[in-house]
Amino acid sequence: MTLPPQPVFTLLANDGRARSGALALTHGIVETPAFMPVGTAATVKSLTPNDLREFDTRIILCNTYHLWLRPGRETIEALGGLHAFMRWERNILTDSGGFQVFSLESRRELSEAGVRFRSHIDGSAHEFTPENVIAFQEGLGVDIAMTLDVCVKLPASREEIDEAVRLTSRWAQRCAAARAQPRTQLFGIVQGGLDEHARERSASDLVAIDFPGYAIGGLSVGESREELYRMARFTASLLPIEKPRYLMGVGTVRDLVAAIDCGIDMFDCVYPTRCGRNGRALTRAGDLNIRNACFARDAGALDPTCACSVCATHTRAYISHLFRSNEILGPRLLSYHNLALLAQLMRDARAAIITGTWTAFYEATLAALTIPG
Amino acid sequence: MTLPPQPVFTLLANDGRARSGALALTHGIVETPAFMPVGTAATVKSLTPNDLREFDTRIILCNTYHLWLRPGRETIEALGGLHAFMRWERNILTDSGGFQVFSLESRRELSEAGVRFRSHIDGSAHEFTPENVIAFQEGLGVDIAMTLDVCVKLPASREEIDEAVRLTSRWAQRCAAARAQPRTQLFGIVQGGLDEHARERSASDLVAIDFPGYAIGGLSVGESREELYRMARFTASLLPIEKPRYLMGVGTVRDLVAAIDCGIDMFDCVYPTRCGRNGRALTRAGDLNIRNACFARDAGALDPTCACSVCATHTRAYISHLFRSNEILGPRLLSYHNLALLAQLMRDARAAIITGTWTAFYEATLAALTIPG
Repeated sequence: MTLPPQPVFTLLANDGRARSGALALTHGIVETPAFMPVGTAATVKSLTPNDLREFDTRIILCNTYHLWLRPGRETIEALGGLHAFMRWERNILTDSGGFQVFSLESRRELSEAGVRFRSHIDGSAHEFTPENVIAFQEGLGVDIAMTLDVCVKLPASREEIDEAVRLTSRWAQRCAAARAQPRTQLFGIVQGGLDEHARERSASDLVAIDFPGYAIGGLSVGESREELYRMARFTASLLPIEKPRYLMGVGTVRDLVAAIDCGIDMFDCVYPTRCGRNGRALTRAGDLNIRNACFARDAGALDPTCACSVCATHTRAYISHLFRSNEILGPRLLSYHNLALLAQLMRDARAAIITGTWTAFYEATLAALTIPG
Repeated sequence: MTLPPQPVFTLLANDGRARSGALALTHGIVETPAFMPVGTAATVKSLTPNDLREFDTRIILCNTYHLWLRPGRETIEALGGLHAFMRWERNILTDSGGFQVFSLESRRELSEAGVRFRSHIDGSAHEFTPENVIAFQEGLGVDIAMTLDVCVKLPASREEIDEAVRLTSRWAQRCAAARAQPRTQLFGIVQGGLDEHARERSASDLVAIDFPGYAIGGLSVGESREELYRMARFTASLLPIEKPRYLMGVGTVRDLVAAIDCGIDMFDCVYPTRCGRNGRALTRAGDLNIRNACFARDAGALDPTCACSVCATHTRAYISHLFRSNEILGPRLLSYHNLALLAQLMRDARAAIITGTWTAFYEATLAALTIPG
């Protein structure tokens, strides 16, 4: 194994626990804090690569589980790898498939070797092992691969959490040993549910392997906001200051700024694109249901503070009409706006951290969230 | 009534029956032959106004029936008219609603005064009259309005066709008399099914009213290709040479070039966008079902002769994957390509007519259609 050049992450500034950095990857530099749009099946739903570049997306996330099943590694490799396949020449992070497989529940079987599962598409049998998910992600040519982890559904017993942490650590070692492509960085995933001792053990095991970055998994799965923030803050404190920290599954305005305040650098979530398809507009004041009758003749932009091309062009009234008429331009425009809004939020957060005005920005962002929900 | 300045149409060249001209409207000049993308509910499905400009769309069609029901005239007027509502600053033609209402069949009731119908959305009762459909279209601020016509389902008896022609002519007179906005041109619609005598009578009645343009309605409704071309050619020959001729409901590569060869100038059809949503790619060789297994690893463009941004960017393999995965980027990319391909076909047809090479272009276009279907 050829080790990648170190460091890939440079911490540029911090303000309290909040941090801003530069993550140098094979397909360019990612400024952090960064939100990664989710492109599950090699497509950020409804948007083109050009759309994503318009709001300066530097990295997206794709799902190993979905790409494994369809179109499969051989097809993607035959088309020149995942970047060429989807015509996205910036960075890609793939998850390991662990999260999706564990959500299959009755359709999967766990062992020390790995996890056997049946496809949700056609019921066909598959197995993920630490080794084959690394080979898969490296075969796609992604910039960041994730270790195969064991996700437990909360609430879980102490024994379940301990066993998940043990197996996650063991698999992380096997993933690290399986690496063969220096172009692909490998991040470890800290598990441990809401148990601080388990989080400490998991973080300690992973830090000993010395990954170039660490994810915090097993959160944003139904626990309260306070528990999420507490565990994110606690787990971040266990991780090396010079490595990027990625909190999986967080994507609301409130949770993003709160998690940045906990010392997190990277995020992904289906929330902005799922809301985009369902008629929910993210704004700096909170979320709006654009189908609501009050928007039918509203000539304003989705968010008057937003500089995206949808807000510069279209009215709430028109987008409301598109959703009432089940027109597919509605999900497209709203997905674009929601992701562009989070991209601007991250840019503003970085500027606040760099200029030492993070606390004021953080408090003003929370105070502006006046819409309940 | 203030009469519009005449002429709005300048015939630039003809080559055999094929013609090329310039149609001067309130929102700019339309070069003909022209294909008008269909934006039923104030949106060309999945595409933005900016997309349409990328392949130099100069005019789109919207549907009176759909906009009447949702969002309704008052909402569109409150938002500044249809151009402002949908942020499309080029030309818009609206149909009169006749075609949609007559397809409701059991839900509508015809009289000399107009046609009463029930909404397909909520069953609410409405009435179209020659006067109110003109007021509606002028209220939206469109560039070309259509007269309210009576469409009969084919096959139809002689009596049914004669009565439809009589009422269409009577309503055309009332539509012309109802005009109040010089910014909106009014086109008459020739009916008469597949009956040459009825077509002659209809054309004669409408030409006597002296519209700035004429549509040929009641075709492309299930008759054979040969009957379509025969009736289009025959009806075109009845219309004044100095006025634009619009064949409603035609939008395949083969039918478009055949109809241009009949002397037609303008077209609309849902075909390219409907195909786009269903995975059917229009090409100069014929239509492809992009879901077909043979495209799963095809690194070529949808149409290697197409200069659109989708063909410049994405592979058949990727678009095939999007459709197999039910990803909404698939319909978006394919709708874009299909409309861009027809825009290029129209541009090439205009160039061939202007340069006197129409016959060679026409024959080469038909000869290139090697894919059956």
